[in-house]
Amino acid sequence: MVPLEYLLRFIDEDAPSGDLTSESIIPEVSCRAVIRAEQDGVAAGLEEAGALFSYFRVDVRQEIGDGKTVKAGDVLLSLSGPAKKILLVERTALNIIGRMSGIATQTRTMADLVRAENPRCRVAGTRKTCPGLRELDKKAVVLGGGDPHRSGLSDGVLIKDNHLVLVPVNEAIARAKAAGACRKIEIEVETAGDAVAAARAGADILLFDNMTPDSVRKTIGNLKEAGLRDRVTIELSGGITAGTIREYAQTGADLISLGALTHTVRNFSVTLEILE
Amino acid sequence: MVPLEYLLRFIDEDAPSGDLTSESIIPEVSCRAVIRAEQDGVAAGLEEAGALFSYFRVDVRQEIGDGKTVKAGDVLLSLSGPAKKILLVERTALNIIGRMSGIATQTRTMADLVRAENPRCRVAGTRKTCPGLRELDKKAVVLGGGDPHRSGLSDGVLIKDNHLVLVPVNEAIARAKAAGACRKIEIEVETAGDAVAAARAGADILLFDNMTPDSVRKTIGNLKEAGLRDRVTIELSGGITAGTIREYAQTGADLISLGALTHTVRNFSVTLEILE
Amino acid sequence: MVPLEYLLRFIDEDAPSGDLTSESIIPEVSCRAVIRAEQDGVAAGLEEAGALFSYFRVDVRQEIGDGKTVKAGDVLLSLSGPAKKILLVERTALNIIGRMSGIATQTRTMADLVRAENPRCRVAGTRKTCPGLRELDKKAVVLGGGDPHRSGLSDGVLIKDNHLVLVPVNEAIARAKAAGACRKIEIEVETAGDAVAAARAGADILLFDNMTPDSVRKTIGNLKEAGLRDRVTIELSGGITAGTIREYAQTGADLISLGALTHTVRNFSVTLEILE
Amino acid sequence: MVPLEYLLRFIDEDAPSGDLTSESIIPEVSCRAVIRAEQDGVAAGLEEAGALFSYFRVDVRQEIGDGKTVKAGDVLLSLSGPAKKILLVERTALNIIGRMSGIATQTRTMADLVRAENPRCRVAGTRKTCPGLRELDKKAVVLGGGDPHRSGLSDGVLIKDNHLVLVPVNEAIARAKAAGACRKIEIEVETAGDAVAAARAGADILLFDNMTPDSVRKTIGNLKEAGLRDRVTIELSGGITAGTIREYAQTGADLISLGALTHTVRNFSVTLEILE
Amino acid sequence: MVPLEYLLRFIDEDAPSGDLTSESIIPEVSCRAVIRAEQDGVAAGLEEAGALFSYFRVDVRQEIGDGKTVKAGDVLLSLSGPAKKILLVERTALNIIGRMSGIATQTRTMADLVRAENPRCRVAGTRKTCPGLRELDKKAVVLGGGDPHRSGLSDGVLIKDNHLVLVPVNEAIARAKAAGACRKIEIEVETAGDAVAAARAGADILLFDNMTPDSVRKTIGNLKEAGLRDRVTIELSGGITAGTIREYAQTGADLISLGALTHTVRNFSVTLEILE
Amino acid sequence: MVPLEYLLRFIDEDAPSGDLTSESIIPEVSCRAVIRAEQDGVAAGLEEAGALFSYFRVDVRQEIGDGKTVKAGDVLLSLSGPAKKILLVERTALNIIGRMSGIATQTRTMADLVRAENPRCRVAGTRKTCPGLRELDKKAVVLGGGDPHRSGLSDGVLIKDNHLVLVPVNEAIARAKAAGACRKIEIEVETAGDAVAAARAGADILLFDNMTPDSVRKTIGNLKEAGLRDRVTIELSGGITAGTIREYAQTGADLISLGALTHTVRNFSVTLEILE
Repeated sequence: MVPLEYLLRFIDEDAPSGDLTSESIIPEVSCRAVIRAEQDGVAAGLEEAGALFSYFRVDVRQEIGDGKTVKAGDVLLSLSGPAKKILLVERTALNIIGRMSGIATQTRTMADLVRAENPRCRVAGTRKTCPGLRELDKKAVVLGGGDPHRSGLSDGVLIKDNHLVLVPVNEAIARAKAAGACRKIEIEVETAGDAVAAARAGADILLFDNMTPDSVRKTIGNLKEAGLRDRVTIELSGGITAGTIREYAQTGADLISLGALTHTVRNFSVTLEILE
Repeated sequence: MVPLEYLLRFIDEDAPSGDLTSESIIPEVSCRAVIRAEQDGVAAGLEEAGALFSYFRVDVRQEIGDGKTVKAGDVLLSLSGPAKKILLVERTALNIIGRMSGIATQTRTMADLVRAENPRCRVAGTRKTCPGLRELDKKAVVLGGGDPHRSGLSDGVLIKDNHLVLVPVNEAIARAKAAGACRKIEIEVETAGDAVAAARAGADILLFDNMTPDSVRKTIGNLKEAGLRDRVTIELSGGITAGTIREYAQTGADLISLGALTHTVRNFSVTLEILE
Repeated sequence: MVPLEYLLRFIDEDAPSGDLTSESIIPEVSCRAVIRAEQDGVAAGLEEAGALFSYFRVDVRQEIGDGKTVKAGDVLLSLSGPAKKILLVERTALNIIGRMSGIATQTRTMADLVRAENPRCRVAGTRKTCPGLRELDKKAVVLGGGDPHRSGLSDGVLIKDNHLVLVPVNEAIARAKAAGACRKIEIEVETAGDAVAAARAGADILLFDNMTPDSVRKTIGNLKEAGLRDRVTIELSGGITAGTIREYAQTGADLISLGALTHTVRNFSVTLEILE
Repeated sequence: MVPLEYLLRFIDEDAPSGDLTSESIIPEVSCRAVIRAEQDGVAAGLEEAGALFSYFRVDVRQEIGDGKTVKAGDVLLSLSGPAKKILLVERTALNIIGRMSGIATQTRTMADLVRAENPRCRVAGTRKTCPGLRELDKKAVVLGGGDPHRSGLSDGVLIKDNHLVLVPVNEAIARAKAAGACRKIEIEVETAGDAVAAARAGADILLFDNMTPDSVRKTIGNLKEAGLRDRVTIELSGGITAGTIREYAQTGADLISLGALTHTVRNFSVTLEILE
Repeated sequence: MVPLEYLLRFIDEDAPSGDLTSESIIPEVSCRAVIRAEQDGVAAGLEEAGALFSYFRVDVRQEIGDGKTVKAGDVLLSLSGPAKKILLVERTALNIIGRMSGIATQTRTMADLVRAENPRCRVAGTRKTCPGLRELDKKAVVLGGGDPHRSGLSDGVLIKDNHLVLVPVNEAIARAKAAGACRKIEIEVETAGDAVAAARAGADILLFDNMTPDSVRKTIGNLKEAGLRDRVTIELSGGITAGTIREYAQTGADLISLGALTHTVRNFSVTLEILE
Repeated sequence: MVPLEYLLRFIDEDAPSGDLTSESIIPEVSCRAVIRAEQDGVAAGLEEAGALFSYFRVDVRQEIGDGKTVKAGDVLLSLSGPAKKILLVERTALNIIGRMSGIATQTRTMADLVRAENPRCRVAGTRKTCPGLRELDKKAVVLGGGDPHRSGLSDGVLIKDNHLVLVPVNEAIARAKAAGACRKIEIEVETAGDAVAAARAGADILLFDNMTPDSVRKTIGNLKEAGLRDRVTIELSGGITAGTIREYAQTGADLISLGALTHTVRNFSVTLEILE
């Protein structure tokens, strides 16, 4: 899990000089409360939300594991402790659960669609995460059943079209290999010819960006003919949606990465109820 | 604008130990680049993205003001400087613009719907923002034409149903008034009777949560009869959508707050192109 | 209470590389100690001081509540734990208690003077706090019985004379209202005419700066005649002292704000004694 | 000077989410302004205030050096730049100048009293500074003509009465000497006998706490007789005021340390005026 | 390069409350100075040292590129600016250059020994770096001609003997592959049998720890026979020294990693001279 | 001990986004482990390493005190707790122990050589520490039996040759004395004449840099003749090694400072073994 300090910054953002409302009107009492799902989906963020409540001395029982499916009405967390603290953390906790469960739910949907067509193919996240939330967004993708893909620019080499404007393909791959022997090298390719050349030059992962399913199939065929299919991981990306993902999965690719998993999140609806 | 340090944390998140790819393959050259809209909408986040590029010694020309409408294909930022730095900042800048413009675009749509029915009524944001992005999310709401509402728990008093489980209405209002004379006091009410009582007790803003348009109208009628309508601001919230917002605007309320403006954001599509 | 990390910075300031004296001469022993008032007044800062000792594993018993009156000689905190830690925290704890109790004591004195003349009038703090100590200074004002007033520039709108050099009164109020419906708008006024105009334009709080008691009375009269007295909070400020505050309280104002409460603090004398 | 980041925290404290007032009502204009003394005294904090304005792109001309005497009405800083930024920094700058000049002015008064009696004797600060402001408070003491004394627990050894409850004098001095050869060792003494013993044991500075002028004189006499006067620095402390400091200066001590220089500061009155 | 803030922490460590010596004795003058090598070797850290001086407004000319060989007496940096600032940064700059050049020099020596035997074999760093200096230590290895190896636990998978006490080899590799498709998987092996099994299970890098050159050769032979040599990178480690490294290079391995490059650094001798 | 937060930064450096390996392959089990010395020497860093493991809920038993001598094979720390956490902290802990014990071991060797010749003479550290590790490096010197010397530029005055290029000796000493009465003043001298002059001017410590043993002896003789030997501490530095230190110790100096203690550290070999 992320460091607690990382999560506490969110409380500080919401209440930089305390909670004016609760501090002025709520007595020093304890109470019980629950956080409840208001829709079906995949739970995520409960560990993080729980850690925040615990930090403020609220007893927490996590009623269901992160990554599990839940139904509308299910209790996710049961809480017991100082009323002021429950109210202080409430909104931040709900925002975390709402976003992470939203991501996990959408990832699960897409992963299920893919698996039905091709059990060896996986859905993957991208770097199109919310600024400041990379780690939580990636974790939610994993909880939904996706591959996290690289965590950022310091983790793995990915040579994209904008790089290739500035340096030729072969030189790019050669330099990347020379810079470090311990990382995979991924490269974006647009044609079957580029794909074969890149695999030959030693790329570990080929990113087919914005190709049609047919082009993907044809390019994989070319790689097989060249005896290179098994040496590379094949990743697809570019505007793939729930409507088209099955067709892409059938091509035999290894990974389908989807920016929308984290850049266009539908909030998962949750609520906190103070009991009695 | 937010402090630069706040934005630099996003670069650090993406590249905690530098950009493996560019550092190993890109030569020490300068280049030009543009950031271009790929859809219609309202631009936001350009000031922030520009500040990040500037920090890394990239010359930036902002081609359009934040808050202005743009068309697909429009250039938003023109860049010129070290290729490695442009590539370092690229994804973070696009993530900021994509989210903020997405919020601003959706806010503008809702605000336009409301204004057509009731020019004195405004759309407002909530605290249902992305953890760590409160300030940028609120700014995007404002750029879209919305009211920011309170920035968090330290800013303004808002007595909600969960508070009222623990303390009676009148006592809550009285304590809040005693705690500080300089802040408005808002309270969530569920019935016309509660609304009149709260206004009488000195609340400044009444939040009608999950009421039907008819109930809203009736409650406003009761407040008028009691001579209290002019002393309070009336805010509506609770699952209001593009489909229902016009009907709510017609009730004569002052504010309509929408969690979805910031918790369910549709990314605004933008791209960065390295030129020549 | 402020985050512990906020308080720990003060220890770090005093001992960036440890406590040379205690670390070299004091054995690894435990001891008991007390913090004792050396004068009469209002206690404040005990919660913060106690939290610091607790952090360093010193057992703390707070002998009296913050905000209560104490006599010279009273024990405020009883301590028991590692001698080196008690000595490490000693000076920082005394500095916090000394400043906060000094503020609370002076605030209580002024608040008592005011209440004797006008029970509905309150003393308030300002932003003239010690840089870095805004939250503790404000808390001490509240413990002394004062109103905290706004916590800073991000909290509430206050249009002062320096703003009005740059923008006309009516426009200033109109813009402030348009920028957000959830905050009170305060404005500094210098004449009865300005006061009436500002109240009519929708200001929530009028700040009468540097007016004589007679002018205050006359201006309040004008507001009453215009039927506006009940729509506004009236605040007085500007060089008001213990010698003149009663006369100002008699005018019927709602708030009297005093920079001196926090910018000219008389330290409250406290001492720490190691026992046996 | 302190790092800029240290000063920027004060702006962030005052405006964690921006300046609501100026941002909503002030246009994007430049203006000129001056910061003016409203009383006589010693200027301090101008360098720090100026650095803050400069950071926000306001042109600053410091009209008088820190540490110089000023008269009521004197302009201290002349400013020219974006009106919003001048207003953003205004209060923080005035708070810094007000506190630091207040300290410097009081220190100068005391130092002048002392020097008139004994040119070799100096006034010194203590660790009784405002939490978080140690460095600025000490700098103000120096600008007023005082000795900064140790900057904190990591800087120099000072064995006080609370240490001596736990370890005998000779052992304390021996251990302190063994722990490091590069720092002076100061010890609090209460009797002439203790003073002679401590000097003999190798103490570098003797702190006579709460002694009468007569006792000081007698103890210095005993040290002279023992041939030890020249090996030690003699410091006096404990409730010494403007009324008694001259008598203490006449005793022939080297240093007189005064907690009140920094724990009971009278704010130096300054104002910022926007011009035209 | 690392962020400037990272380097400024080192100045702050050395001078948390300023430079007592220079601030009290050095006038406000400018001067010139040079940093000079006192031994032969490979320069490193000049960019970082230069950035520190520049931050404090000292003009810097870097006389030689990082990674280049230098002779005793060569000037590395020429400086011109405020004397106090040059003296403030001096020791920190020399400490950085001394350590980084020491690492680069030792790496170059080892890399040259290896290349003479096997041009395709490279020397690599490890995670045995100085706490807090991972990035600078790794950069110095690269400047000396080494491979940086993974930057830490978040970058690449390395399954070591301590992992294999807790989970069987095949399961370890399978789980690691399932967790993410974008990272290479390295595993420590102790026997030829383990090596073949691990390569078959899909490991990308095999780490032969503490094997004799003969065992290495034999194990590589087994991998060749199994047709697996080309699918894996072979890394050697464990107490390899300048005396034995040539023999290891001759085995045909791809990488030789050396903890001593960063855990047992011989400082590179440099000095700063103030001119005239 | 240093603040825990200081140590946690090292974990964060090694695992900014978690431990990819353990998180993906290690089950949620507890285990036991030991950290064992692989060579003879002086233990150091055990307290720090133990604090890190404890933070992550690993039970720690420190089997030997920091500063004690150990033999190859000795268990230093016994651990019991979550396997993933032990593996997370392993490398950082070993890096800390390896460096600190390396420093302590080398310091002990030098201190023993010196004491055999001159029991009143001590070995001292310098500011030539690893950037960011000043406090741990100094602590290791002390655990090895050395004097820490000043902790940095804010702690004690040391006038070096580079200062004396810019200001004459007598003026330097006079200004330093005027700036603060509570710190010792050290000055670098190169000749016997300079030494006597500096002692006369009031320096507390004389640093003889790069003198031969004969010159040291002669200079001490001159100081004795002038009756100044007892007023000053005499420190030697400059390229002194295990081969020459005894001869320097015989000169009668008080301190011998050695940059190599911290700038050229031989790692102390330790290992962590997971049990069963």
